[in-house]
Amino acid sequence: MNSKDIKKLLEDVKDGKIEINDAINHLKDLPFKDLGFAKIDFHRELRTGYPEIIFCSGKTVGQVQKIIEFMLTKDTNIIATRATSDMYNAVKDLHPDFQYHEVARIISRMKKKVTIPDSYISVVTAGTSDIPVAEEAAVTAELLGNKVNRIYDAGVAGIHRLVDNLDIIRDSKVVIVIAGMEGALASIVGGLINKPIIAVPTSIGYGANFGGISALLAMLTSCAAGVSVVNIDNGFGAGFNASMINKIRG
Amino acid sequence: MNSKDIKKLLEDVKDGKIEINDAINHLKDLPFKDLGFAKIDFHRELRTGYPEIIFCSGKTVGQVQKIIEFMLTKDTNIIATRATSDMYNAVKDLHPDFQYHEVARIISRMKKKVTIPDSYISVVTAGTSDIPVAEEAAVTAELLGNKVNRIYDAGVAGIHRLVDNLDIIRDSKVVIVIAGMEGALASIVGGLINKPIIAVPTSIGYGANFGGISALLAMLTSCAAGVSVVNIDNGFGAGFNASMINKIRG
Amino acid sequence: MNSKDIKKLLEDVKDGKIEINDAINHLKDLPFKDLGFAKIDFHRELRTGYPEIIFCSGKTVGQVQKIIEFMLTKDTNIIATRATSDMYNAVKDLHPDFQYHEVARIISRMKKKVTIPDSYISVVTAGTSDIPVAEEAAVTAELLGNKVNRIYDAGVAGIHRLVDNLDIIRDSKVVIVIAGMEGALASIVGGLINKPIIAVPTSIGYGANFGGISALLAMLTSCAAGVSVVNIDNGFGAGFNASMINKIRG
Amino acid sequence: MNSKDIKKLLEDVKDGKIEINDAINHLKDLPFKDLGFAKIDFHRELRTGYPEIIFCSGKTVGQVQKIIEFMLTKDTNIIATRATSDMYNAVKDLHPDFQYHEVARIISRMKKKVTIPDSYISVVTAGTSDIPVAEEAAVTAELLGNKVNRIYDAGVAGIHRLVDNLDIIRDSKVVIVIAGMEGALASIVGGLINKPIIAVPTSIGYGANFGGISALLAMLTSCAAGVSVVNIDNGFGAGFNASMINKIRG
Amino acid sequence: MNSKDIKKLLEDVKDGKIEINDAINHLKDLPFKDLGFAKIDFHRELRTGYPEIIFCSGKTVGQVQKIIEFMLTKDTNIIATRATSDMYNAVKDLHPDFQYHEVARIISRMKKKVTIPDSYISVVTAGTSDIPVAEEAAVTAELLGNKVNRIYDAGVAGIHRLVDNLDIIRDSKVVIVIAGMEGALASIVGGLINKPIIAVPTSIGYGANFGGISALLAMLTSCAAGVSVVNIDNGFGAGFNASMINKIRG
Amino acid sequence: MNSKDIKKLLEDVKDGKIEINDAINHLKDLPFKDLGFAKIDFHRELRTGYPEIIFCSGKTVGQVQKIIEFMLTKDTNIIATRATSDMYNAVKDLHPDFQYHEVARIISRMKKKVTIPDSYISVVTAGTSDIPVAEEAAVTAELLGNKVNRIYDAGVAGIHRLVDNLDIIRDSKVVIVIAGMEGALASIVGGLINKPIIAVPTSIGYGANFGGISALLAMLTSCAAGVSVVNIDNGFGAGFNASMINKIRG
Amino acid sequence: MNSKDIKKLLEDVKDGKIEINDAINHLKDLPFKDLGFAKIDFHRELRTGYPEIIFCSGKTVGQVQKIIEFMLTKDTNIIATRATSDMYNAVKDLHPDFQYHEVARIISRMKKKVTIPDSYISVVTAGTSDIPVAEEAAVTAELLGNKVNRIYDAGVAGIHRLVDNLDIIRDSKVVIVIAGMEGALASIVGGLINKPIIAVPTSIGYGANFGGISALLAMLTSCAAGVSVVNIDNGFGAGFNASMINKIRG
Amino acid sequence: MNSKDIKKLLEDVKDGKIEINDAINHLKDLPFKDLGFAKIDFHRELRTGYPEIIFCSGKTVGQVQKIIEFMLTKDTNIIATRATSDMYNAVKDLHPDFQYHEVARIISRMKKKVTIPDSYISVVTAGTSDIPVAEEAAVTAELLGNKVNRIYDAGVAGIHRLVDNLDIIRDSKVVIVIAGMEGALASIVGGLINKPIIAVPTSIGYGANFGGISALLAMLTSCAAGVSVVNIDNGFGAGFNASMINKIRG
Repeated sequence: MNSKDIKKLLEDVKDGKIEINDAINHLKDLPFKDLGFAKIDFHRELRTGYPEIIFCSGKTVGQVQKIIEFMLTKDTNIIATRATSDMYNAVKDLHPDFQYHEVARIISRMKKKVTIPDSYISVVTAGTSDIPVAEEAAVTAELLGNKVNRIYDAGVAGIHRLVDNLDIIRDSKVVIVIAGMEGALASIVGGLINKPIIAVPTSIGYGANFGGISALLAMLTSCAAGVSVVNIDNGFGAGFNASMINKIRG
Repeated sequence: MNSKDIKKLLEDVKDGKIEINDAINHLKDLPFKDLGFAKIDFHRELRTGYPEIIFCSGKTVGQVQKIIEFMLTKDTNIIATRATSDMYNAVKDLHPDFQYHEVARIISRMKKKVTIPDSYISVVTAGTSDIPVAEEAAVTAELLGNKVNRIYDAGVAGIHRLVDNLDIIRDSKVVIVIAGMEGALASIVGGLINKPIIAVPTSIGYGANFGGISALLAMLTSCAAGVSVVNIDNGFGAGFNASMINKIRG
Repeated sequence: MNSKDIKKLLEDVKDGKIEINDAINHLKDLPFKDLGFAKIDFHRELRTGYPEIIFCSGKTVGQVQKIIEFMLTKDTNIIATRATSDMYNAVKDLHPDFQYHEVARIISRMKKKVTIPDSYISVVTAGTSDIPVAEEAAVTAELLGNKVNRIYDAGVAGIHRLVDNLDIIRDSKVVIVIAGMEGALASIVGGLINKPIIAVPTSIGYGANFGGISALLAMLTSCAAGVSVVNIDNGFGAGFNASMINKIRG
Repeated sequence: MNSKDIKKLLEDVKDGKIEINDAINHLKDLPFKDLGFAKIDFHRELRTGYPEIIFCSGKTVGQVQKIIEFMLTKDTNIIATRATSDMYNAVKDLHPDFQYHEVARIISRMKKKVTIPDSYISVVTAGTSDIPVAEEAAVTAELLGNKVNRIYDAGVAGIHRLVDNLDIIRDSKVVIVIAGMEGALASIVGGLINKPIIAVPTSIGYGANFGGISALLAMLTSCAAGVSVVNIDNGFGAGFNASMINKIRG
Repeated sequence: MNSKDIKKLLEDVKDGKIEINDAINHLKDLPFKDLGFAKIDFHRELRTGYPEIIFCSGKTVGQVQKIIEFMLTKDTNIIATRATSDMYNAVKDLHPDFQYHEVARIISRMKKKVTIPDSYISVVTAGTSDIPVAEEAAVTAELLGNKVNRIYDAGVAGIHRLVDNLDIIRDSKVVIVIAGMEGALASIVGGLINKPIIAVPTSIGYGANFGGISALLAMLTSCAAGVSVVNIDNGFGAGFNASMINKIRG
Repeated sequence: MNSKDIKKLLEDVKDGKIEINDAINHLKDLPFKDLGFAKIDFHRELRTGYPEIIFCSGKTVGQVQKIIEFMLTKDTNIIATRATSDMYNAVKDLHPDFQYHEVARIISRMKKKVTIPDSYISVVTAGTSDIPVAEEAAVTAELLGNKVNRIYDAGVAGIHRLVDNLDIIRDSKVVIVIAGMEGALASIVGGLINKPIIAVPTSIGYGANFGGISALLAMLTSCAAGVSVVNIDNGFGAGFNASMINKIRG
Repeated sequence: MNSKDIKKLLEDVKDGKIEINDAINHLKDLPFKDLGFAKIDFHRELRTGYPEIIFCSGKTVGQVQKIIEFMLTKDTNIIATRATSDMYNAVKDLHPDFQYHEVARIISRMKKKVTIPDSYISVVTAGTSDIPVAEEAAVTAELLGNKVNRIYDAGVAGIHRLVDNLDIIRDSKVVIVIAGMEGALASIVGGLINKPIIAVPTSIGYGANFGGISALLAMLTSCAAGVSVVNIDNGFGAGFNASMINKIRG
Repeated sequence: MNSKDIKKLLEDVKDGKIEINDAINHLKDLPFKDLGFAKIDFHRELRTGYPEIIFCSGKTVGQVQKIIEFMLTKDTNIIATRATSDMYNAVKDLHPDFQYHEVARIISRMKKKVTIPDSYISVVTAGTSDIPVAEEAAVTAELLGNKVNRIYDAGVAGIHRLVDNLDIIRDSKVVIVIAGMEGALASIVGGLINKPIIAVPTSIGYGANFGGISALLAMLTSCAAGVSVVNIDNGFGAGFNASMINKIRG
């Protein structure tokens, strides 16, 4: 609601075209609409099928069930990340439509169609044990309405998979690179392509990886420009971020 | 050099249109062209005026001067980051064209025009002391061919500057948020807009900021989806990354 | 026991009004009464119903039971924090009066009335998973004799709950802000109100939150003046501290 | 501006008592006034002489001078913390009224009287080298309008100074305890009094104090309830926080 | 494929001895053969019985079984490290030949003979609890075709075992030293012999060993020249590395 | 075996009083006797009943049983620390004499009398949860032949127990102070007595105690001279060390 | 002042042998004398020549001068550690008697004779660069009245110096071992002798020594029983502690 | 001196061929010769020209001069690492033969010829700023008698230098890889060659490299087998270690 809108409103008040109480209600929302944290384009999101997202970790099965039960009353798509199979079972009881992406640990219910651009996101992992994080990223991006190209186990030991898929990676609009331990894959991919790379360090490993710190620091200090980093194991964040970039129109 | 090119080359060999030794020289470059770390589209970059970039930190004045002297022999734009005024003076002696962005600590020489899209990047800082990092990001982005919108000192104490500029920030294609200490600005901006945010923690501060660790961790763990992070004080990386995203065509 | 008291005592000795052995007993307590760690106003506390507090973590069920059994012999209110349901069951056997605040993990027995001031404490959390810590803070404050206003899940994703309750938060005498991950809520609330804020970082989260370090550092380095910090997950400390401030009389 | 105010304004608009443009200007400020980070009671602050505060660290002498020059145009009290003597000299040129608290590293100009309550704040330090941080806290509190009682060098080696002043400490409304190294003084004072304690770890020391981490962790994990902590060396934060508490009216 | 090979290929093309499509297929592999990460001398390794190695940690039993099932189709030796007994049981079902080295947590199948040099590797541990890591190193080295000399429990408390075996240690070609806690054994052995030492810190211990950090730092800062370090608990890496050195021919 | 002994031996060789092979056997032990890590006064220890000590943590029940079985063949006292009740049961089967100190987690068999000096060691803990570590220290010291004076739960909350026992603490020859969290008790006791203090940080606690780091750093940086520190939770080391000091004769 | 003394005093009051005001003055000191942090045996210390100790680090030259000026008014020995030559010059002006131990950075004035026992303390360092810390320890111990035996540069590279002096080290009453980097010397000496060892990690070194952390952790986790640790570079603490032990009478 | 030698000596004693005192002198050295830390093959080293090595860091110019002055009296080669130009000037005064390798910060005097094998060591760096560490490694290896092949600035940005030199790197006997920041070069080279790699993390960089920790952790957790790691910036250790391996004869 910009100055022009306010002027129009006030003129309507002056001219008696609108009741004062109704005008107050319009104005009361001003701070929310103008500043409105996390409420941007709420209607558009409903309209376009953009899902509501719940982070289940640290919540009880009961809390997740209750939140989703409330959401079902709204006409919206739903994504719940870090969801256990127990949570899925609890949610399935509410409505038969829910889907459980087991490896990605995501519960989803996509009632409304989401527009999917032609461009795509590549998700590259260094090892097999990075796959759960990769699936969280890939499934998130897919549910948000993106094509995803998975290239898994393409680290030092499986580098031929990287090379075999180099063209398809280079043609992505944005690339998610997921690696634990020394996290070198982000720098290697960063040296081979010129697209934005979202690097996800994983906590998988042992010893001096210190729960993902080794990969985190390596990715943050990557000499390959174009690499930015999200939290350790944060597949969801990478998928969401990549979706934002993949949906950019020129 | 794809399969078709190779086929053409071999047919030329067969037909005697090319000498075997010349063909060998063409083929010798195959691995570089195909895999070619950091050499992607080298010709396009020269053609488009995309600059060569030197990271001066840890190099002596003499080394920087020598690297740039060599670059001058090539017909390319030049950016040197983390450059001291001593380095600038040494480089100025080589050629009068160099410019020194003092706060950003960047030496540049833009000989070739760079195409600049209509969309723009916003650079938002929490405090006054974050400005050197912000300038590194902004000047990098500008030299790479982007419009930049600066909103400085918009942290908790100057939050009105954030609110005053909310519309212009929301209309950016990508936003760089730069903050030290508790780094909350990244989460605040992340809650207000739905564009990709590149967060840069800064080392400015004291005590439990531990040289930027507090802001780094806060940004990595931001609850606002859409935030990815680069190294502490890495204005260049943020500017480069933002340029990549800003130049995405639909 | 100040100089005047001692003088009186010695005069009584001189005058034979008090036996030397009785005088010795009075004097023996001097260092305790004067220095008396944790023994200040012991009688006043008993008189006012101020409870005895046991920290159960690291103690066995048997130890907790034994300590509380001993306390029952004294005419005092009892609070036991970080208490498991096993501990509650063991304590319930001793006396039927005990109450178990499950989410707060607190066992209480409030035999004596505590005076409750008109002013109140607000407890604000960023997320749902911060609730156990928040309940520890809130129940502690209530048992110590305070009115508590709970505003939960008011972080970036639920910021409307913060805004909706801004007036009631501003009218608090002191505010407890509880958040994990990037802990930005402390800075956000700190920028919106001018009351003392006690920030409690929580260990809930993953990756670079490092068991609460991210929120801890963010809160310690908060640019909003008026924020002080207690230990990670220390809901009790926050509730106790807030009670001290809420009970200040002009 | 609450609903009643808005109603009145709209009725004035309707009745032609106020010009639409003027009404717009009133309404434009709504989000700021309602949400208004750091802008709370701006007028009251001006009225009461509450000062504007500048954190000089990380700013150049020129920047500080420019900020203060601008402030002089407003009719307000000024505090600049972490100010070097160079900054003071630069500021002194602007106006002869400025005062430099050298040990506290604070520049001040108190043009308007601040109301000072009868209650007071005690500032206790463990050692001599904690004095600069203590002075920052004490001078901050004094400039904000508080009586301050200094007890310095009262750590293990000077514990008699603590004991000698125990009564006066106990009668404070709030106590600031400042200590480096093992930071035990916060727990010792916390065991002796029942007032809120704001603990400030200092970076002074060597070896395993790791720039203040030892004292910081010790204070955060203090077994004495009632202790909350601010950033390492953050004398200003402690002074500001203590002022908030000291000014609480019953 | 060197220049000579390429020349020969092109001459064959010119002379019509090879079809252009076949030549293309040969050339297509050029980058792999020339750069080929982790693919060096693949044929020699098959020929010489050098095993394929799988790191089982972070993989499910099903994944390990599937990988090994695929490997069985190739005529190669197999080593699977960090393998649980569940994994062994799953693998045993595929083929009866597999062996399980329980303490070393290694599954192996050595179908082809490996050449074993006369020289040998010594594996020295400080304590009894370092034995699992030591066995991982020793069994790895043995399976790769090396003689291994084990000296266990030779730390400060069992130093006589070190002294008793000093001659045999000195005659090793390379020595692996495995120790937790203060990791001093690496420095002690390093002061007694003049052969390359590969030090392996172990995570066994408590308190200030911080999961192996104490031994890791001690080994990295060892004043005895000739000591290099692998990851905490990385027996495999030490065994592999030692094998490389032991197989060096003059 | 000093020079005089060697001279005597050689003269015996020369005079034919001893066979050359026997002389060689005597000399072979020279390096052990002279340098002999951990073998000092081996005979005296046997003679005096000084026990052999086994650290059970990281060892299997089988390994502990086997080590102790071997020790039973020697005529020596036995202490096994960090022993589980499973280990005790396994050891009890070997010989009925073994005793299990459950809280201290120590298995002992004291066959030979140990001389006990008149002086004693005080073991002081801050809290109840420090008792297992304290018992490890106390039982170790007792088994090594020392009188031990236990003062438990004497931290900030139970400081009266410290004051009540001050005289007995001051008359100790050496004091062990055991505390977790902020570890202030070491400094408090250090300020009250002038005897050597061995401080043991414990890992009990939560949040910013980081598994004992807070207490460890606080004790290392204690301003009270006379405090030295052993590893987190290392009750055995403290007991052993205190025994060494308590047994010093003038 | 024990109960008997108080009884005597009260009887004197009763009998009029002492004025009430004088009695008050005696009693006023009770808490100090009984509890008296750092004031124990104050008179004995004066009598025996035990020095007052000032830690100069973090104090200004002026502060040190002022403290020592005050001390000169008392009839006591003086030690000032971490003293710069500037401080020495300032102090020398006050009185000609002061001595400056340059390497140890200690200013001393020993007016009263201190009793020196026959037993002695050994100070062993690993390297040459540990000497300043060693001298701080040695000079402290000497000034406190102890014989000191220095064995410097006896680490891995100079281990013969350790072996050559083994007898004299073994005959010490207590040994101070000072080492940086991997700090193995503490474990090596601990394995060779059965006397209490006070280990001092030093900050000298580079890389993964992290300012002394590597040596600190190694010493804390030493497998050699009998080793306790003081702060990084804390030569004074080691010397003071060793003096306490060396002065123990049987 | 083995049993046979001792037997011969005793027979000589018996036969009167050697004086008892001379025999004692021979035997006295037994523990040194047998155990002899750092004294192994002392004569061979003198004979072969193997140099004595001094680590100058933490030593004063005077100390270095004095140590080298003493060494000049022995007929040996000398290497002094981490030597400043001041140290070189001081040493040059003692003897004109000394050479200063400025970038490597090494002073050397090679009086005796060292045998140099045909095989060689490759030293590869990621960046220009890693050169000082690389030169320390290379010069060390050369002075110890090795051929060294330098490939500098071959990281992500200069990867063509790596590829251009792949054959010569693969034909090395051992490779030193030196890199800061993300340290990925060690993994990249480790994936391309099958020779032992000694990785040296460097402290050059900023932000989340934390003085070399990022590269250190990345190298320790490298997925490429065959990589072992030395201390941050420890070029000397890498050169010494590589020399040991390069000199292995089959």
